[in-house]
Amino acid sequence: MLINKLGEFGLIERFRRQIKTDSTVVKGSGDDCAVIKFDKNNYLLFTCDMLVEGVDFLPREKPYLIGRKAIAVSASDIAACAGKPLYCLVSLSLPKKTSIDFADKLFKGMRELCRKYKINLVGGDLSRAGRLTIDVSMLGQVKKKNLVLRSGAKYGDIIFSTGKLGGSIRGKHLRFTPRLKEAKFLTENFKINAMIDISDGLAQDLAHILEASKAGAALYEELIPLSPAARNFAEALYMGEDFELLFTLAPGDARKIPLKKLSGFTPIGQIMGEKYGLKLVDKKGQERAIPARGFRHF
Amino acid sequence: MLINKLGEFGLIERFRRQIKTDSTVVKGSGDDCAVIKFDKNNYLLFTCDMLVEGVDFLPREKPYLIGRKAIAVSASDIAACAGKPLYCLVSLSLPKKTSIDFADKLFKGMRELCRKYKINLVGGDLSRAGRLTIDVSMLGQVKKKNLVLRSGAKYGDIIFSTGKLGGSIRGKHLRFTPRLKEAKFLTENFKINAMIDISDGLAQDLAHILEASKAGAALYEELIPLSPAARNFAEALYMGEDFELLFTLAPGDARKIPLKKLSGFTPIGQIMGEKYGLKLVDKKGQERAIPARGFRHF
Repeated sequence: MLINKLGEFGLIERFRRQIKTDSTVVKGSGDDCAVIKFDKNNYLLFTCDMLVEGVDFLPREKPYLIGRKAIAVSASDIAACAGKPLYCLVSLSLPKKTSIDFADKLFKGMRELCRKYKINLVGGDLSRAGRLTIDVSMLGQVKKKNLVLRSGAKYGDIIFSTGKLGGSIRGKHLRFTPRLKEAKFLTENFKINAMIDISDGLAQDLAHILEASKAGAALYEELIPLSPAARNFAEALYMGEDFELLFTLAPGDARKIPLKKLSGFTPIGQIMGEKYGLKLVDKKGQERAIPARGFRHF
Repeated sequence: MLINKLGEFGLIERFRRQIKTDSTVVKGSGDDCAVIKFDKNNYLLFTCDMLVEGVDFLPREKPYLIGRKAIAVSASDIAACAGKPLYCLVSLSLPKKTSIDFADKLFKGMRELCRKYKINLVGGDLSRAGRLTIDVSMLGQVKKKNLVLRSGAKYGDIIFSTGKLGGSIRGKHLRFTPRLKEAKFLTENFKINAMIDISDGLAQDLAHILEASKAGAALYEELIPLSPAARNFAEALYMGEDFELLFTLAPGDARKIPLKKLSGFTPIGQIMGEKYGLKLVDKKGQERAIPARGFRHF
């Protein structure tokens, strides 16, 4: 029996069930970052993301942008937990026939994004392989009182996203800004109950929040902020790699969010009971169940 | 111009020169682990290692042993800095046609080694790819007073290795024991000046110590503890993946090392001045310069 029978999330769940961690681990596998006890006021955040040529980027993409993306996806995971990225390592496997010019530009993309967010690139590993593969592991820090996980969404919470959604494949997936400032602003000024970055697609990542929070949700079609790059509404729902933040907070707090601040905050739905499932409400007020579908590796 | 013109270490050096880190980074790229300020008495250690099918293991190897090795190589890096491994993440890219049985065994190998050394496996990333690639990033901790880097070797130091060397390709590279106990014993009882794990081969890894310490060294052919798996002496010098510790300490201390303790400690040479270079002394006392050769990806 092959792993695609289980699917990506089935396989992850199979692995997760077998893992035991000690009491220093606040949150292991199953969120955007692992959360580890650190000091009186802070947790450590620990995350990794692997980019594979032909899956996460095409061989013809600019190496500068590939390098940039490799750092940005991990920074986006740190943002999703409301933390500050501090240190990263880069494991890189390169084909023998890689040019020095390509390697230089790849590295420049990494270095510049690290410098922009004051992330220390502290080392890595270099290997030969048939295809370019980059794995970035990142360490960050978050104030205990600011930590946000996927599991905290509450009945009645308003669901927001940052920025605009859909059509990321047409360029944004290589050039996106990890929403670190937005996460900092939100958690320093509001009580955010749940947060995730939209890497697999709005429907699927919202489903991750719903599963972790044992909740349902209604999304309002009219409210979802469509990116000009999106060709249709389905792309905003199911296409991955927007790398916007999806978060929930109580209605009273939600009213106070300055909608135009930073990359923009848009209310797009509401948390419901678990039995409600995940539904899309169209312009006429008609509800229909939508699948928790999105990008999956298997 | 292609990267093999620079070679693995030339490319790493090219990248390293361009990196700046802040004052919280005690040691960035260029040792077995990155060393980061943590609390009053301890540093954080941060390391990653990528294993690629066809380079670091053959597709026909047992998945349990591949998984085991993926964790063990990073634990060995933590040992080389005299630390204790605490947390790890696993980035895994798998071919679509991987069987669930293969994935289960791969994961079992990782899990069991983690359990043995009390390492918390706190998450990871799963991706699709043409070939199996595993990148493990690991966080550890070391008492400030016990930290050992490559750069501390001093003129006159005796050079030791743990265990036996050579022929690792015939099985040990998949089954080796990371020398965590040995590192702990050594640093708690002696003043170890420099240490590295032998991953690229004795000659090359000793050369890393010599370069970082601006020193030379004489190795005594007769003293080098040859593994029964080694077909000849050159394999002990130049074949990679022994994953034994190579360390140096002052002659006065060296005399007190219990040679048969744990995996065994064998004095194999002495640190000389930088101009001396790296030389092998044969049974007749003849010296000859040897190349800092070993496994290289490019």
